[in-house]
Amino acid sequence: MKPYVIGIDLGGTNTVFGIVDARGVVIASSSIKTAKHANFDDYVDELYTELTRLIEANDAKDKIHGIGIGAPNANYYTGKIEDAVNLPWETPIDLAGKISDKFGLPVNVTNDANAAAIGEMTYGVARGLKDFIMITLGTGVGSGIVINGQLVYGHDGFAGELGHVTMKRNNGRLCGCGRTGCLEAYCSATGVARTAREFLEIRKEPSLLRNLPIDEITSKDVYDAAVSGDALAKEVFDYTGEILGQAFADMTVFSSPQAFILFGGLAKSGELLMRPLRASMDRNMMSIFKGKPKILLSELKEADAAILGASALGWEVKPLATTVSQA
Amino acid sequence: MKPYVIGIDLGGTNTVFGIVDARGVVIASSSIKTAKHANFDDYVDELYTELTRLIEANDAKDKIHGIGIGAPNANYYTGKIEDAVNLPWETPIDLAGKISDKFGLPVNVTNDANAAAIGEMTYGVARGLKDFIMITLGTGVGSGIVINGQLVYGHDGFAGELGHVTMKRNNGRLCGCGRTGCLEAYCSATGVARTAREFLEIRKEPSLLRNLPIDEITSKDVYDAAVSGDALAKEVFDYTGEILGQAFADMTVFSSPQAFILFGGLAKSGELLMRPLRASMDRNMMSIFKGKPKILLSELKEADAAILGASALGWEVKPLATTVSQA
Repeated sequence: MKPYVIGIDLGGTNTVFGIVDARGVVIASSSIKTAKHANFDDYVDELYTELTRLIEANDAKDKIHGIGIGAPNANYYTGKIEDAVNLPWETPIDLAGKISDKFGLPVNVTNDANAAAIGEMTYGVARGLKDFIMITLGTGVGSGIVINGQLVYGHDGFAGELGHVTMKRNNGRLCGCGRTGCLEAYCSATGVARTAREFLEIRKEPSLLRNLPIDEITSKDVYDAAVSGDALAKEVFDYTGEILGQAFADMTVFSSPQAFILFGGLAKSGELLMRPLRASMDRNMMSIFKGKPKILLSELKEADAAILGASALGWEVKPLATTVSQA
Repeated sequence: MKPYVIGIDLGGTNTVFGIVDARGVVIASSSIKTAKHANFDDYVDELYTELTRLIEANDAKDKIHGIGIGAPNANYYTGKIEDAVNLPWETPIDLAGKISDKFGLPVNVTNDANAAAIGEMTYGVARGLKDFIMITLGTGVGSGIVINGQLVYGHDGFAGELGHVTMKRNNGRLCGCGRTGCLEAYCSATGVARTAREFLEIRKEPSLLRNLPIDEITSKDVYDAAVSGDALAKEVFDYTGEILGQAFADMTVFSSPQAFILFGGLAKSGELLMRPLRASMDRNMMSIFKGKPKILLSELKEADAAILGASALGWEVKPLATTVSQA
């Protein structure tokens, strides 16, 4: 097997990519601006130019086993992005097909949270785990579910949208997906900021957060205030952990995972989030599962995680057919 | 491969068992009273006597490939019943081990809902489906989840307890599992009867159900009243279908199944349940999954379904070791 894979993390703002070896070391990496090109083919051209430069500079030509791409709503089965609100291109985008044609290499794609799960299983804290759920707590809440050592793609390739389980059936917050009460509307970085704003409006207590313009409060502000001992900011994390724990208890009755693995900005909140999360999981857990699922933190270096996650898919590619039989 | 398997459905009241061929025909069946024996070994003795009689009467000796057993809380990995409130025996019960020793045949066990899912996949409406969720709507709500053609047992063998996802986080009904607000407390036969009682107490409208002693109302009474045109009884089904549809929408974001397959008493309520269920699923479904998962009804003959479900596990057994190496 060739010794390297390419990992590409296609995000709404930036596309980061790198060359990765079998031990999960990112040999070299770079990035381009995703939104710079109004046309997807122009984007592919720039990506090709930059990646080729990287490959040649690292003497990796003819040593690439495959390319893995993590991208919003990318479908493992079809290779396409069928609907992506944050990208400037017309959908469906034939992501795997176009990249494969351009590079002459086999390509696998999936969404970023699934890529993170595979990355964690290949290089990270999930090595050796056969049943776990990866939860990414970023701007949104993403998930990648692994059951019996296999990523769950579901019938249509879109399984594992656990950010959109309904946590509040009455008077729930509007979610980006158009429904209300989704986990993502509460337990993402955005959700934490929304909770802080709600608390500040409804309550009277003093808080460091009152020194900030209310509409500009971020989850980072809430974290900083909580670390400084601000009681209201701490309660925002209690509220977030409570809901996340309820969700984890429900997910456990589905697939009984060994662990939930957390990744993303909020996952770095330490005991501010972990203490209420563990307490809520325990309180809401069905008795036969009590104390069983662990909560683990991603072990992938944050700067490399997106590339590593995507790259792990590159090991699983099927070789390209050597002859094209289009009569 | 030997042409027959034995299916045993171990229930709290009765144990039914039969000899099944590869096409899913129950060649012969019988039953014994589960609760008659205070001692599990005595129960196994009676089961052995009765089953041996059945096997000999049908000339099936030496033609049995394996035994499959569906039983409450039976664990596929350990072969044991670790905790079963409805059985008279001390747990853990080494179900697979004791039955295998007695019969000299390999044995697989799982819980009844998982057995139903495997039965449906082997002989029923799920033939050819790789991603589906079996939901049994009986006294409780059970489930068996199939992903990529494999039953989901989870890390510990207890996965697929979808009757215990939380549907009401505030003021939810007490569930048999000790928690509150579980799906089972609303969408089981018992749940339907509870809903009817709640409606009768809270509301003033006339209803045929008011002719019955309120504490004795069953889901069958509610069904009969609804079929007779009783508006309140119909609303009980609307309420049940609404909650079940909410639950199915949430389950869909987990594994994106091709179908939900319904089995059990309530599943025979026809459009009374199906119409509000479909409407609720559609209203609550995340847009990328909208219209995708079908609702199907079990195709297994009810009298045979429990035996067939259990028997399907019998095809998957590993042969017994022929020599015992206990030095």
